[in-house]
Amino acid sequence: MKRWLPQRMQGYQRDDFYRDLIASIVMTVLLVPQNLAYAMLAGLPPQVGLYAAMLPVLVYAFLGTSSTLSVGPVAVASLMTATSLAGLALPGSAHYTELAMVLALLTGGFLLLFGALRLGFLAHFLSRPVLSGFVSGSAIVIAVSQLKHLLGVETTGPNVLAQLYNLAFALPQSKVVTVLVSALCILVLWLGKNTLAQGLCRMGVNPRHADLMARLTPIAVIAGATLWASQGPWAAQHGVALVGQVPQGLPGWTQPWQSLSQVSDLWLSAMLIALVGFIQSVSVAQTMALRRHEKINPNRELTALGAANVASAFTGGYPVAGGLARTSISSAAGAQTRMAGALSVGVMAVIVLTLTPLFMKLPVAALSAIIVMAIGSMLDWRTFANAWRYDRADALALAFTFVGVLALGAQQGIVVGVTVSLGVLVWRSSRPHMAVLGRVPGTEHFRNVDRHSVQTLPGLLALRVDESLFFANVAALEERLMAEATSPQRPTVILLNCSAVNRIDSTALEALTELEATLAQQGVQLWLSEVKGPVTDRLNPTPLGQRLQQRVFLSTHHAFAAFEAGQHSH
Amino acid sequence: MKRWLPQRMQGYQRDDFYRDLIASIVMTVLLVPQNLAYAMLAGLPPQVGLYAAMLPVLVYAFLGTSSTLSVGPVAVASLMTATSLAGLALPGSAHYTELAMVLALLTGGFLLLFGALRLGFLAHFLSRPVLSGFVSGSAIVIAVSQLKHLLGVETTGPNVLAQLYNLAFALPQSKVVTVLVSALCILVLWLGKNTLAQGLCRMGVNPRHADLMARLTPIAVIAGATLWASQGPWAAQHGVALVGQVPQGLPGWTQPWQSLSQVSDLWLSAMLIALVGFIQSVSVAQTMALRRHEKINPNRELTALGAANVASAFTGGYPVAGGLARTSISSAAGAQTRMAGALSVGVMAVIVLTLTPLFMKLPVAALSAIIVMAIGSMLDWRTFANAWRYDRADALALAFTFVGVLALGAQQGIVVGVTVSLGVLVWRSSRPHMAVLGRVPGTEHFRNVDRHSVQTLPGLLALRVDESLFFANVAALEERLMAEATSPQRPTVILLNCSAVNRIDSTALEALTELEATLAQQGVQLWLSEVKGPVTDRLNPTPLGQRLQQRVFLSTHHAFAAFEAGQHSH
Repeated sequence: MKRWLPQRMQGYQRDDFYRDLIASIVMTVLLVPQNLAYAMLAGLPPQVGLYAAMLPVLVYAFLGTSSTLSVGPVAVASLMTATSLAGLALPGSAHYTELAMVLALLTGGFLLLFGALRLGFLAHFLSRPVLSGFVSGSAIVIAVSQLKHLLGVETTGPNVLAQLYNLAFALPQSKVVTVLVSALCILVLWLGKNTLAQGLCRMGVNPRHADLMARLTPIAVIAGATLWASQGPWAAQHGVALVGQVPQGLPGWTQPWQSLSQVSDLWLSAMLIALVGFIQSVSVAQTMALRRHEKINPNRELTALGAANVASAFTGGYPVAGGLARTSISSAAGAQTRMAGALSVGVMAVIVLTLTPLFMKLPVAALSAIIVMAIGSMLDWRTFANAWRYDRADALALAFTFVGVLALGAQQGIVVGVTVSLGVLVWRSSRPHMAVLGRVPGTEHFRNVDRHSVQTLPGLLALRVDESLFFANVAALEERLMAEATSPQRPTVILLNCSAVNRIDSTALEALTELEATLAQQGVQLWLSEVKGPVTDRLNPTPLGQRLQQRVFLSTHHAFAAFEAGQHSH
Repeated sequence: MKRWLPQRMQGYQRDDFYRDLIASIVMTVLLVPQNLAYAMLAGLPPQVGLYAAMLPVLVYAFLGTSSTLSVGPVAVASLMTATSLAGLALPGSAHYTELAMVLALLTGGFLLLFGALRLGFLAHFLSRPVLSGFVSGSAIVIAVSQLKHLLGVETTGPNVLAQLYNLAFALPQSKVVTVLVSALCILVLWLGKNTLAQGLCRMGVNPRHADLMARLTPIAVIAGATLWASQGPWAAQHGVALVGQVPQGLPGWTQPWQSLSQVSDLWLSAMLIALVGFIQSVSVAQTMALRRHEKINPNRELTALGAANVASAFTGGYPVAGGLARTSISSAAGAQTRMAGALSVGVMAVIVLTLTPLFMKLPVAALSAIIVMAIGSMLDWRTFANAWRYDRADALALAFTFVGVLALGAQQGIVVGVTVSLGVLVWRSSRPHMAVLGRVPGTEHFRNVDRHSVQTLPGLLALRVDESLFFANVAALEERLMAEATSPQRPTVILLNCSAVNRIDSTALEALTELEATLAQQGVQLWLSEVKGPVTDRLNPTPLGQRLQQRVFLSTHHAFAAFEAGQHSH
């Protein structure tokens, strides 16, 4: 048992075990409403959400590098599952559930592949503004998708606007009792979230217990709504939709490959779910790790999440990931070690074996109310406000991604996000900052002539380009140098200060090689200074490196001295 | 007339006009085989290729910034047109032709939009290796798509592998005479390309004329094949496919919006065609411009190409772009000014009015032979070899894009290319080079302690991060600084040398703000030195800027001096 415990837990004692057992019971029970609700969001029967929170949790506890991350059904992956499967099968049908397992298998496969290729850097593939825009957009898509359950009407639509449009027409058909149940659930959940804990504290309850009791509200809502629906004929009389028959017992060992023929329809979705799930998991895990002075290994996280998804696929689940809401709940329950995660499988097994018949009379509107209240924390305006003040391009990237998710859905929205995020990167780099340098009198320092009072030498143009040279920006450098070389005061030497050039990619190398030859034709020599070690090592064996050999200087000072010496010798 | 001539042509004379007229006649005639062939590649009737080389050429001559770029049907845009429309209509049908016009309209619309947004930087959105991989992959896809015409069989397939597989089974059904016609055409084209010019030169012909005569080979092939097919019953007897009825006369003013309802199926394709067409056009235009010391304005190119595509849509054409093969043909024909382009519309009108009936008996295999020989120049192994030697990651990006185009087709292939190109960018930046700095004894210079023999101060760690700080790499910096701050020899001050930091994006700003606070808790101060002007301007008003105010130094030298002063005062 000790082998897979983190080092600082080698002194694990019996007392620790009892504490973890209690924590895992509390945590598992607290997470039941989320598991049920997100399965519904994904268009799946509610027990699938419970199955997805069993074996995957155990697998992650063995393989993951975070001791606190809670893995299981999460909002964004559930939404993306629903989007991926829409049109391929009827939500709630056996074929749909089977396809969800195939999706989990493919998602797990991609994660394992990324892990084998050591692509842990993908965790930082999206900027925070883009991720924030994506998550906020998804929150609204999720909320709108639940409105029909809250109102008790049957509508649909290809995107958020169409759904709202259709909902507006269906509004008169709203079922009054369903609306009342929804409103009551939302009210109770809101009170539980916002005032219950403070109230209990003021009544003298220990703050940690008060917080835990407040977090029990969703369970109370589910229990209350179920009790109401099962104690009288009201629900049936007024057409309040109920969850219905839920199979009792543990998930069987399922074989998702019965539907593997539909891989071609699902692989792209699976890849996107893998990417987004991974980014979100690592982001949550790293936030928790920073607080606890622990370390996350993104490459091992890929493998752990991949194995968790494969486990989910074989035990009747659907795509899983680590989520902020789940992790904060399990953290509040006192789960501080992987042991708590591992134990929760047993607790969940007891729940699945005994409690599932109770869900038959659970009103769907109660689950929708839980979803709507849970996604409140996903809406994030602060990042937009900050970005707008500090960096307009980041704010626009956020806005674009947000609108992309609303207009095109979560799947294409994330593609928009990646494109915008990287597009901003290319756009910024495509106009590199360049500064003409001069010597600070009496020193060996060289500074921008526009910002400092410095000396220049006639015939020598010292230019510093403040960016690595690569495909997106080398054209701008080319243009600037050609403009200088054909200007009336054209220099005989252009000295390129490379102190900010960390890399020259092959597109830039080719362009520089052509440029050096063209400049030479015009009678202008190209010199380099302050070329960094790694850049020199690469440049030396190339034809350009060979040509420049005698014209690369350790410092701008040396280059200026060489130029002056050359002038005097004439 | 002079208004739209480039400045250096203000002295345009009658003699110049006659020279341009001759050039435009030669050029237009030389381009006829390509125009016919690429229309067929796009699945369109051959005259559409001629229409697409009329009004768009005139529009580009007025609006474009290149005096030599030839705009019209090109290989890649034709392939992408075929891919976009596959499944939406039957190739050759009236609906298919209509959809091609809608596609041209949307492509033009996107280009005009990009131009209005001044997104000229998109011209450098792809690295040369990725573009090379995309073009080489497209060349193979095009060649494979023509094999069925060359063999006279009817096969199809969703991708290159499937097509080859199906072709292998259909091989026994090959029509012998068609195969002979194909082989003969390819042989003649090959001789014309590789040995005719030298042979003529050796016979004493002026090299420029010899080159022009060699370039006439495709016309000779078309004329010869047509003559053969129309002079006897052989073609019909042996089932050699002919082009068939071609309408005579000028293209009418068409109204592509009859099919505008299919915009939702076409917009993404149109955007990709716009992007790829633009990148290729600017790349060709810039190569030509560099030779002639002219300048290309990418933003105006967007508008010019956009208007050309809109013109194509309204005159029975399909998506057009500037192409290397077209431009080298028109350049060989002596077309040096826009006037030649403008005049070619008239020449093409004469051709369309008089020669189209001749195409009825043109064997399809001859056009396929022209396509296959034309795409030879698109295959480019040199870029791969160079990249493999200089920069392994660039070579892998090329290979990935190449395989992506083969496996998924040109459309998804270009998406793979963009993703890989930018993925490599993020991956490289995600592990920034960092160097611990020390003072070169007796100077104010600071260098990497691993590469130079320098002095450091105990308690002060000077770290230079060789990259702008942004979402992809700030986690690596965070990790390094936390490792230093928790190491046994932990410094009291970490000095971050920002000489290579050209920008700090909002993700990095947020992370640095958190990091500074965490370091302060550990008793480690964060200092900065050599922060560039634009970075300082942004940083100053932020909370981090406020906190660091007294700890930002003009140079590393100043920071070292301040640290020593602080130590002595204790």
